[in-house]
Amino acid sequence: MSKINSSIQMVKAFAPATCANVAVGFDILGFAFAALGDFVTLTKRDDSQIIIESIHSKETLPFVAHKNTASLVVQKFCQHVNLDIGFSIHIQKGIPLCSGMGGSAASAVAALVACNHFLTSPLSNNELAHLALFGEQEASGEAHADNIVPCLFGGFTLIQSHTPMDIVTLPVPDLYCVLLHPHLQIATRDARAALKKEITLADYVRQSANLASFIASLYEKDYQLMQKSMQDLIIEPQRAKFIPEFYSIKEAALQAGALGMSLSGSGPALFAFARRIEEAEAIASVMGAILKKKNIDFDCWISPISKQAAHVVHEERKL
Amino acid sequence: MSKINSSIQMVKAFAPATCANVAVGFDILGFAFAALGDFVTLTKRDDSQIIIESIHSKETLPFVAHKNTASLVVQKFCQHVNLDIGFSIHIQKGIPLCSGMGGSAASAVAALVACNHFLTSPLSNNELAHLALFGEQEASGEAHADNIVPCLFGGFTLIQSHTPMDIVTLPVPDLYCVLLHPHLQIATRDARAALKKEITLADYVRQSANLASFIASLYEKDYQLMQKSMQDLIIEPQRAKFIPEFYSIKEAALQAGALGMSLSGSGPALFAFARRIEEAEAIASVMGAILKKKNIDFDCWISPISKQAAHVVHEERKL
Repeated sequence: MSKINSSIQMVKAFAPATCANVAVGFDILGFAFAALGDFVTLTKRDDSQIIIESIHSKETLPFVAHKNTASLVVQKFCQHVNLDIGFSIHIQKGIPLCSGMGGSAASAVAALVACNHFLTSPLSNNELAHLALFGEQEASGEAHADNIVPCLFGGFTLIQSHTPMDIVTLPVPDLYCVLLHPHLQIATRDARAALKKEITLADYVRQSANLASFIASLYEKDYQLMQKSMQDLIIEPQRAKFIPEFYSIKEAALQAGALGMSLSGSGPALFAFARRIEEAEAIASVMGAILKKKNIDFDCWISPISKQAAHVVHEERKL
Repeated sequence: MSKINSSIQMVKAFAPATCANVAVGFDILGFAFAALGDFVTLTKRDDSQIIIESIHSKETLPFVAHKNTASLVVQKFCQHVNLDIGFSIHIQKGIPLCSGMGGSAASAVAALVACNHFLTSPLSNNELAHLALFGEQEASGEAHADNIVPCLFGGFTLIQSHTPMDIVTLPVPDLYCVLLHPHLQIATRDARAALKKEITLADYVRQSANLASFIASLYEKDYQLMQKSMQDLIIEPQRAKFIPEFYSIKEAALQAGALGMSLSGSGPALFAFARRIEEAEAIASVMGAILKKKNIDFDCWISPISKQAAHVVHEERKL
């Protein structure tokens, strides 16, 4: 049975933003975007309460423990490992809410990674993923693991199976990612509700070919193949309507050299892949220009796709 | 413009049997089974006729040139390269007809590979694949490339796109394949007609995960992952009914150590993967035992999965 390392008083963990779906892998593929993320700090308390002390965020987040993904999963963690311990939680949100960049997953994962660091025998990533699902259930109404998994494992991930949780870590391409967040509100529940419950066998076959080729392109580092494969016939056409000028933005990104561009998760954030930093900058610029014309504010980040997973950034011990 | 090499008088080519679909890649994945195949011999004629001189086969095949896949594609080949030349064709069928082992594709491909050998500047495999499609159109009523492609390229193949034809050659796993042909008649058209035109989004997601994981397992040589991935939720459940005791046979194969078992193409042939030759033999034995009990005759082959593609086996030149 796991115990608390009694010398550790405070742990701060970082969890990256994540892009789920990646055009061809609805609900199964994702990657971490380490240039952006959430920080969660847990400080041991004398009592056994789990209390959010502060949230530093542009948006308003619930302070009530069982409604906030970070504190909710800390409660679940403590129940799971049978620990009677209290934490004060400080949250620094780097990821905008409801942006499609895995903000709720990141807060939950950062909290769990911090929690886990207090244990003498930490839980596995698979165990943490299961606990993080409670946060996603709360945030979006469905327990989807497609942001949690790349956030916890880093790099490019594939969920082979949810129950039991089987994860494949894929090769990380030597590419840059442009992540652009138009300031539009799309709730994950609405984006899910927009999807038809059936697809045609013909679309299934074509989309399968894109998915299989995309996976091969990661292993082969064949970015021409990746470019041909990054086409979503199933989900993107149903969600493009949430983003004004979606197809103009996509066309501009591809013209500027993007290997592919699509929604990050259920949007509104958009991601694009580029071979070189200069291309990434040009892509970001043409995508942004279209939003500016429509008077839509946005934020934009560029970063290499990285292997970096959620991790502890700081701890404080009792002398 | 390509010309005939005037010294070559006769060419004999071999084309392997192939398994399409491979449980997780309906219409896109396939592999060659080099232990079994068709031979087609082309002998130059003095006139410009294309005539089938002999067919050595257990079944009756059409001798009429435009109805036989081998001679049909030879006609198409000659039109395509603008050659006014005649051939006598001898066909040795190793692959049973309507078995789901790519018999019509193999005859067409062997004929094309033989034809191609007569040229001073041979056509590419992609060009040959397009020509071979005419044979599949004739044989099954639909121009499917999923047997043609592994037959022409050898090993494990993925059709990324039909138009234009884009092929990905995948890593060849270090495995044995059991190929078992119960003597049942299923026409490809009937097997296709049995399929629903729509699938649920939920099944699509689960099947995507299996396909993506299967591709990863080929690159990783992770046969445990392959075993978990080789599950077909979409096609197999709709076609299993064509094979008496399908699920008993599958269960027995898996119990005997198969990494997976499913229909080869649209059946009735069944394939199973095994790590070792002894396992392959045990799998073949338990699968066959169930068919024997049902008084269903069958043939069975075991072979390593090989990179060997269709190729010329013999030529005769004028001195």
